[in-house]
Amino acid sequence: MSRMHSFSPLQFALTTSTASAITHKVPRRFFQSTAMTGLSRIKPAARVSGQKQDVWSIINEAAAASPKQPIVNMGQGFFGYNPPDFILNAAKEALDRVECNQYSPTKGRPRLKKAIADAYSPFWGRKIDPETEVTITTGANEGMLSAFMAFIEPGDEVIIFEPFFDQYISNIEMPGGKIVTVPLHPPSTGATRTSSAADWAVDFEELEKAITPKTKMIVLNTPHNPVGKVFSKKELQNIGHLCVKNEIIILSDEVYDRLYYVPFTRMSTLSPEIEALTITVGSAGKNFYATGWRVGWLMGPADLIKYVSAAHTRICYSSVSPLQEACAVGFEQASAQGFWDSTIHDMKSKMDRFNKVWDELGMPYSDPEGGYFVLVNMNKVKLPEDYPFPDHVASRPRDFKLAWFLIQEVGVAAIPPTEFYTDKNAHLAEDYVRFAVCKDDEVLEEAKNRLRGLKKYME
Amino acid sequence: MSRMHSFSPLQFALTTSTASAITHKVPRRFFQSTAMTGLSRIKPAARVSGQKQDVWSIINEAAAASPKQPIVNMGQGFFGYNPPDFILNAAKEALDRVECNQYSPTKGRPRLKKAIADAYSPFWGRKIDPETEVTITTGANEGMLSAFMAFIEPGDEVIIFEPFFDQYISNIEMPGGKIVTVPLHPPSTGATRTSSAADWAVDFEELEKAITPKTKMIVLNTPHNPVGKVFSKKELQNIGHLCVKNEIIILSDEVYDRLYYVPFTRMSTLSPEIEALTITVGSAGKNFYATGWRVGWLMGPADLIKYVSAAHTRICYSSVSPLQEACAVGFEQASAQGFWDSTIHDMKSKMDRFNKVWDELGMPYSDPEGGYFVLVNMNKVKLPEDYPFPDHVASRPRDFKLAWFLIQEVGVAAIPPTEFYTDKNAHLAEDYVRFAVCKDDEVLEEAKNRLRGLKKYME
Repeated sequence: MSRMHSFSPLQFALTTSTASAITHKVPRRFFQSTAMTGLSRIKPAARVSGQKQDVWSIINEAAAASPKQPIVNMGQGFFGYNPPDFILNAAKEALDRVECNQYSPTKGRPRLKKAIADAYSPFWGRKIDPETEVTITTGANEGMLSAFMAFIEPGDEVIIFEPFFDQYISNIEMPGGKIVTVPLHPPSTGATRTSSAADWAVDFEELEKAITPKTKMIVLNTPHNPVGKVFSKKELQNIGHLCVKNEIIILSDEVYDRLYYVPFTRMSTLSPEIEALTITVGSAGKNFYATGWRVGWLMGPADLIKYVSAAHTRICYSSVSPLQEACAVGFEQASAQGFWDSTIHDMKSKMDRFNKVWDELGMPYSDPEGGYFVLVNMNKVKLPEDYPFPDHVASRPRDFKLAWFLIQEVGVAAIPPTEFYTDKNAHLAEDYVRFAVCKDDEVLEEAKNRLRGLKKYME
Repeated sequence: MSRMHSFSPLQFALTTSTASAITHKVPRRFFQSTAMTGLSRIKPAARVSGQKQDVWSIINEAAAASPKQPIVNMGQGFFGYNPPDFILNAAKEALDRVECNQYSPTKGRPRLKKAIADAYSPFWGRKIDPETEVTITTGANEGMLSAFMAFIEPGDEVIIFEPFFDQYISNIEMPGGKIVTVPLHPPSTGATRTSSAADWAVDFEELEKAITPKTKMIVLNTPHNPVGKVFSKKELQNIGHLCVKNEIIILSDEVYDRLYYVPFTRMSTLSPEIEALTITVGSAGKNFYATGWRVGWLMGPADLIKYVSAAHTRICYSSVSPLQEACAVGFEQASAQGFWDSTIHDMKSKMDRFNKVWDELGMPYSDPEGGYFVLVNMNKVKLPEDYPFPDHVASRPRDFKLAWFLIQEVGVAAIPPTEFYTDKNAHLAEDYVRFAVCKDDEVLEEAKNRLRGLKKYME
């Protein structure tokens, strides 16, 4: 219970849990009796019942069971350091103002909408209207749910690329959407040599075949989690062309938009026709190192955004006021403070610092073009044949075993990416493991020290 | 745009807006052209399209159009003052801690769950398990949505009392629930004399008739918004008995649970059988004068809460970290700081201070037993026959006209409660107007001064 209070940077913070991780300590009198008679109508809706154990609880369980305490947590993508002082101070100042502690407008605080519109207008090459083209949401996650709730009727199809951010699935299914996946194809040489994350490729014929008359939306993520790919302008144009031709709304998840190490193109800026179909997703939590602040936004044409706002109002009503105000200050001052430049420089340094260990080990990885995740190909790691994996790990693809093994044997937690795949395509990523580098340098160095211990398991 | 920054306590803050209030300033090239050809498949989902203008935008519009600037806003129930210092300071301290700025566990921060369990265990007469019986949500609003998402399948029926909190409607409809309303009957003498809010009565025969084999949940609100009624133990027992008999989940919205001026009974504490069916809704925003913090929770049997948690994870993933930490401190220290006693004393004083103006005027009201709203019966106010109400107000029940008139003629904003009714039962409340008294005393005095101006319109 006190784990969260005595935080140390090396400690594995149990920051996620789900229904499947819940223990049952309370007498289930009522449910037992009615279950026995078979009369009970008290059952959960299908949307929340019957799920397999998720990756976060498996990794948490592995961490708790490991002899290598404390585990170095490079699993979940939370920052190991604080937002910059100018934003923290703005949050503290907001807490002293009465109106910053009360309901914000459902569409967001005017100051934040304006700050975002002003920050993005230069990229759009025109003035973004803060009142009609920006809406604030309770994190990017609830923003995406709002977008699906705004447009998806039961049976509508939504195309997503694999690997996908796992919340897309439940968020699309909640309004009754049907998920259609199109894989990013890893480089054929992924097991033997390091190459750019750019080499994870879209098969455009495959994408076009996935489109049906029921396709209502497509979800794009660039820079991409977990691949680290920044979609090229050409790739985006091809996708955009297909969407314009087929009238498909593009939900462009650009939450890592301030972390790119190659030229970054924003979907919405490609053409007026594409812009008319594109809703761009942003995250102040990702931008400002504050994943726990739950401030996100969506930008797009007024005729799309108004429905997203309406859905958001019904889901969360409004979003957290004092931290919206702080994020407004963040956007107002970030350029002058040199923050956007330093965030790229700092994260790229962390990425390069960490990945040196793979170069040392001769372990290939997909060199990220953006974001703070790196996919490492561990085909060369030989898992002992008699290793005692628990059944729920043994039954999953090899990457789950790799992740479990890493936690037990070297004490570093990372994420098995097949969690972000459908069963059909999981084989594509079964040799990969995802590491989050948004951690203090000392944590990265400690992780590297431990990961050098993999040498003895390599073929 | 700068309205939110130059806040004054008397000023009417435009703190809500909805899709219907959005203006269209951006060319709708794409939509116009496809609309003309009739080919467009880009349309919103039914759940967000086609709504009538809501009460908040009508009241905002009235405020903007009024000659009595600044308007005294007694409409929306946000506080006109800050949370207590010990909670604000805890929030500021949390902002300095790395782990308080990153993702919290999806079910909430352990410290907050424990603080809530400890704070409520004495009322429950047993130890509440913070790990399985409490889950943190993004405000009580998203908590209630999570509960509906957890249990409602399309076609399931949910009983709510009229008047109802307007968000119940969209929150029930989002998972496909069907709303069945049962009115609270106002006192027959409501137009002529002040009496207790207790006199708004449930017709239990009517309630029993509303139950069908499809009834999955009932929503209760005590202390009640907008009536100010605190349901008696006997009333709750009658409702609970019907729910146990028919296996109906009780969503007990107790967000005003620290503001009661008569004995307050919590639904869950009536019997083990009732408790097994009851999910209690709480709001740190309401408890601690911070409606913009978006921290709420649900408590109940582990077998119900686990599905609510699962739904919450899919909706918002996790809730705002630093303010969860501050609310934990709030619950840990509130009793020792004397906060729970002073909050009752202070709000009751405000209520009595404000309602004196109705006694002066001879205008009857429902004397609240809890909460911070008062319903005033304005049957005695004679609206000029040729008064220029805009069409969208003229077409609504008399309370909308009363609210519009109040804003224009005396400069006080209040809420017409028929917004919280179905058309069938709206006539029950058409003479009433709702005022929120959670404002500074100087604001209440200014409101009273202005409201004395109603004398000349009274019969």
